[in-house]
Amino acid sequence: MRVIPESLDVRANSIVVVAWDEGTAGQIHSWIEETGHHVTAFVNASDEPPVLDVESERPKREASQFDFPTRGSFKGLPLISASDWPDVVKDLGVTKALVMISDQTDRLKNIELARQRELELVNVIHPTATILPDAILHDNIALFPRAFVGYRAEIHPGVLINTGSQIDHHNVLHPCAHVDTGVVTAGNVVIERFARLHTGAKVSANIRIGEGAIVGAGAVIVDDVPPRTTVAGVPGRVIKKH
Amino acid sequence: MRVIPESLDVRANSIVVVAWDEGTAGQIHSWIEETGHHVTAFVNASDEPPVLDVESERPKREASQFDFPTRGSFKGLPLISASDWPDVVKDLGVTKALVMISDQTDRLKNIELARQRELELVNVIHPTATILPDAILHDNIALFPRAFVGYRAEIHPGVLINTGSQIDHHNVLHPCAHVDTGVVTAGNVVIERFARLHTGAKVSANIRIGEGAIVGAGAVIVDDVPPRTTVAGVPGRVIKKH
Amino acid sequence: MRVIPESLDVRANSIVVVAWDEGTAGQIHSWIEETGHHVTAFVNASDEPPVLDVESERPKREASQFDFPTRGSFKGLPLISASDWPDVVKDLGVTKALVMISDQTDRLKNIELARQRELELVNVIHPTATILPDAILHDNIALFPRAFVGYRAEIHPGVLINTGSQIDHHNVLHPCAHVDTGVVTAGNVVIERFARLHTGAKVSANIRIGEGAIVGAGAVIVDDVPPRTTVAGVPGRVIKKH
Repeated sequence: MRVIPESLDVRANSIVVVAWDEGTAGQIHSWIEETGHHVTAFVNASDEPPVLDVESERPKREASQFDFPTRGSFKGLPLISASDWPDVVKDLGVTKALVMISDQTDRLKNIELARQRELELVNVIHPTATILPDAILHDNIALFPRAFVGYRAEIHPGVLINTGSQIDHHNVLHPCAHVDTGVVTAGNVVIERFARLHTGAKVSANIRIGEGAIVGAGAVIVDDVPPRTTVAGVPGRVIKKH
Repeated sequence: MRVIPESLDVRANSIVVVAWDEGTAGQIHSWIEETGHHVTAFVNASDEPPVLDVESERPKREASQFDFPTRGSFKGLPLISASDWPDVVKDLGVTKALVMISDQTDRLKNIELARQRELELVNVIHPTATILPDAILHDNIALFPRAFVGYRAEIHPGVLINTGSQIDHHNVLHPCAHVDTGVVTAGNVVIERFARLHTGAKVSANIRIGEGAIVGAGAVIVDDVPPRTTVAGVPGRVIKKH
Repeated sequence: MRVIPESLDVRANSIVVVAWDEGTAGQIHSWIEETGHHVTAFVNASDEPPVLDVESERPKREASQFDFPTRGSFKGLPLISASDWPDVVKDLGVTKALVMISDQTDRLKNIELARQRELELVNVIHPTATILPDAILHDNIALFPRAFVGYRAEIHPGVLINTGSQIDHHNVLHPCAHVDTGVVTAGNVVIERFARLHTGAKVSANIRIGEGAIVGAGAVIVDDVPPRTTVAGVPGRVIKKH
């Protein structure tokens, strides 16, 4: 059953963030005021609210500060649950969104939904990120602290570049490519849509990472990665096809 | 035999640094004025001055500038040798200290000693370090240039985070954990006390590094590391128990 | 046959960049105004203009913006081809140069040629680079965005430190050592002339990388690297002698 608040605190710079996990949505919320945006609500793009066994989740986290979503709230803000969330938030007066659902195909589906309903998709770029001249940034992109986008790199919608990761000159990151922390790519790398590079992966120059491929933590990629494969190790080798 | 100067040049922002090696104490000294502190002396936490065969050490260093300690001096400043150094420096008018002894158990022992004698333990944080919202920093912490402390990370006393290393969101670093240069951790990592991560190590999300564990240079950690083991390689495997 | 323009647009801060590839010369050109310099021409240090089959090169590049040199032009600026280019550019009124030829022995030969002809060799240092106290920088050095030079490190002519690479305290980089993106060295590392560290390589403390050695992408170096060898893997092992 959908969960919709009666009203939202809407300002000129208000957005909804379509995600409700502490690692992504929580982090972005913590520094979003520095980007000029303001989060007025979080969104769960489903007609059922998230079900989370907090009692079993909490002991796994040693950090003393950790927020879990409840039925209608996350981090003290409303958490909307609705598959037709673009219409819902527009009815509530919000015109801008950032879609950062962790499932990357869901992310793209909801980006397209938001676009159809004429929501404005915003970029959130931490002030410590560096963007070099002639880089092309589309919309609905998240650049985390110290993310780097090189000269003439091209970043498509739905891409997240996590803390300190470097995407170098003339890279092309297709929709909903996902780059974890501490990743480094050399020049002229192409990352197809839905591919994901895990913590600390390295990619040599002129490499293509195929659609939906998964590059394991710390892998070093010196050959093209076929679509829908998982590669790991140094040098990276295919360990799974999906 | 203890070595104690007759007096020190003490200002309001004066501290002693309890360490006397060029790599740690020397580096910190080079940029400490940028942190608002001022080093008035170095301390060797022992009743015997450091014995160093400079004639055999110097040829190992190609760099043209390299300082070695002498009996009572390091980098043109007094080098105090005394196991009861907190009382000694208080008698000389200094009320603040940073304890960064390279041996991590000695480091904690001397942090506790300083605390008992009511010295103020300071943090030294290079201005290029980044600390995200809601991070919790205890005292006696050194953040080197470009060190990064993520959202809601918790850093306990005696931790050193070396150049450019990234400690991500919700990490907990227990007392005297030691992080060398170019290390990257993902979210929700716990590093127990006395553990040490060497140059360029990578740690995946939700991992626990056990007490006193050693993570080798460039190792990629995708499973929990047991206490008092050394792990190396990609993926990291236990190569030694201590 | 040499290609020489009739005149150049020369200002007080004009330099020539001796290189004509998009990855190095193109990138530097994109941000050089931020360093206080101005590129008035590129130079091909040969009496024959570069021959490039653009028709076959272009399809390899997915990025929508990519510049290739033509006979006499690169990036809308003159491209001089002349082996005696220092005399040529001085005749055209330019007194400063940066030599960044990708072949490292050619680079040093042309640095020496420029010095003989009394051209001033400049450093180009991106404003996001960090240089710690007491570092020694010679001339004809390129520090890319976020490059890091540690305390008392020594950087000789012809060295390029690419994006985000960290050269730590007391390192010595000999002439025309070349450091790709995302490299991390610990303290007291020596890199002999003409050595090259590829993307994301890591080097432990007190290591010597021999003359002309090649360190593969993502390699982790824990032992000295002999001259004229290629090392790869974790830990790095010699895979080739040249």
